[in-house]
Amino acid sequence: MGGKVLTAKGVATRRRIIETAADLVAAKGVSGATLDDILGQSAASRSQFYHYFADKDALIGEVIKLQTERVFAAQAPRLTSFSSMAELRLWRDGIVALSATKKQSAGCPLGAMAYQLSARPKPARANLQASFDAWASFFESGLMRMQASGELDPAADCADLAQCLLAALQGGLLLGLTSGDVKPLVIALDMALHHIAGHVADGRAAW
Amino acid sequence: MGGKVLTAKGVATRRRIIETAADLVAAKGVSGATLDDILGQSAASRSQFYHYFADKDALIGEVIKLQTERVFAAQAPRLTSFSSMAELRLWRDGIVALSATKKQSAGCPLGAMAYQLSARPKPARANLQASFDAWASFFESGLMRMQASGELDPAADCADLAQCLLAALQGGLLLGLTSGDVKPLVIALDMALHHIAGHVADGRAAW
Repeated sequence: MGGKVLTAKGVATRRRIIETAADLVAAKGVSGATLDDILGQSAASRSQFYHYFADKDALIGEVIKLQTERVFAAQAPRLTSFSSMAELRLWRDGIVALSATKKQSAGCPLGAMAYQLSARPKPARANLQASFDAWASFFESGLMRMQASGELDPAADCADLAQCLLAALQGGLLLGLTSGDVKPLVIALDMALHHIAGHVADGRAAW
Repeated sequence: MGGKVLTAKGVATRRRIIETAADLVAAKGVSGATLDDILGQSAASRSQFYHYFADKDALIGEVIKLQTERVFAAQAPRLTSFSSMAELRLWRDGIVALSATKKQSAGCPLGAMAYQLSARPKPARANLQASFDAWASFFESGLMRMQASGELDPAADCADLAQCLLAALQGGLLLGLTSGDVKPLVIALDMALHHIAGHVADGRAAW
């Protein structure tokens, strides 16, 4: 994109290509979603494409950003605002409910791309890493608010506990894809919450 | 295969097709590894293929079985024999060392297939579910041995704790694919071990 100024129509075309690519990547994976497919389904020409994106990797970077917005929006407002164990449990309840009502095949669009991009060079994974980092930062910020209020032990490592939440979530979602139910997610998230509750300051209600 | 009796050469051909398919699925995913690719690289004809396999799904089932054998062999002997917290920690050390030395892009071949098969009908996922079930059963058996020896609280739910181990492992491996290091795996596994250690019977050394 560089410093290009897009017309309203250009913005809409670019957005349509990204949304079409996101759908195709979700259905067929990063390598299965060919540029021909993406252009065909978004009714865009090859020259239009190269006007908006340097290459397919640049488009995939935009797909990751779009899916990240969607993933975070689906967890709002709890993900970004929790400041107590009780509110963290409400976030957990929301994720479980979402996973139970969605098509079981859905999983996490970012988790799906972790394997799809794993064989690609590091720059291709940079956007995905930025998304996981942002996700972990939301957890870490909430845990630090719990520390500030005195609910969480000052010695607890909030960055590590945030990674525990993210790993439990990704592992539970992955196993649920195959089992076709929400149970692995529930068990994994409850482990992570229990682990965090183990750092609740003495004298406070624990898990 | 049914009740077909294969010659030694037939067994070798069938095995070669499965091993080639396993490599291609690892590199390109289930849908990216086309039958043409698999036959070309294993120097097998289409009629040979249909002599050994009903269809591509049947072949993928055999790929899952092969990868499962490899995954379990890589964790031997600890996975199948641990009977104490100390031995479970040795299993954890082994997995971490393996993951640190392997190409970072490797992850878990079974975890990779969870997303690849998620949109397929349930029968296509049955072999993968059987593999995850077998994996969890190994954990559960070890945890039950810890219960029998008195190390683990009799009230601990070994089936749930086994799922915790598997979810932490899969989540940590998935996040490590993107970060390119072993840290997410270490944090996730240590959460699971800590969680299990929380069920160690009173009076025993905990985590």
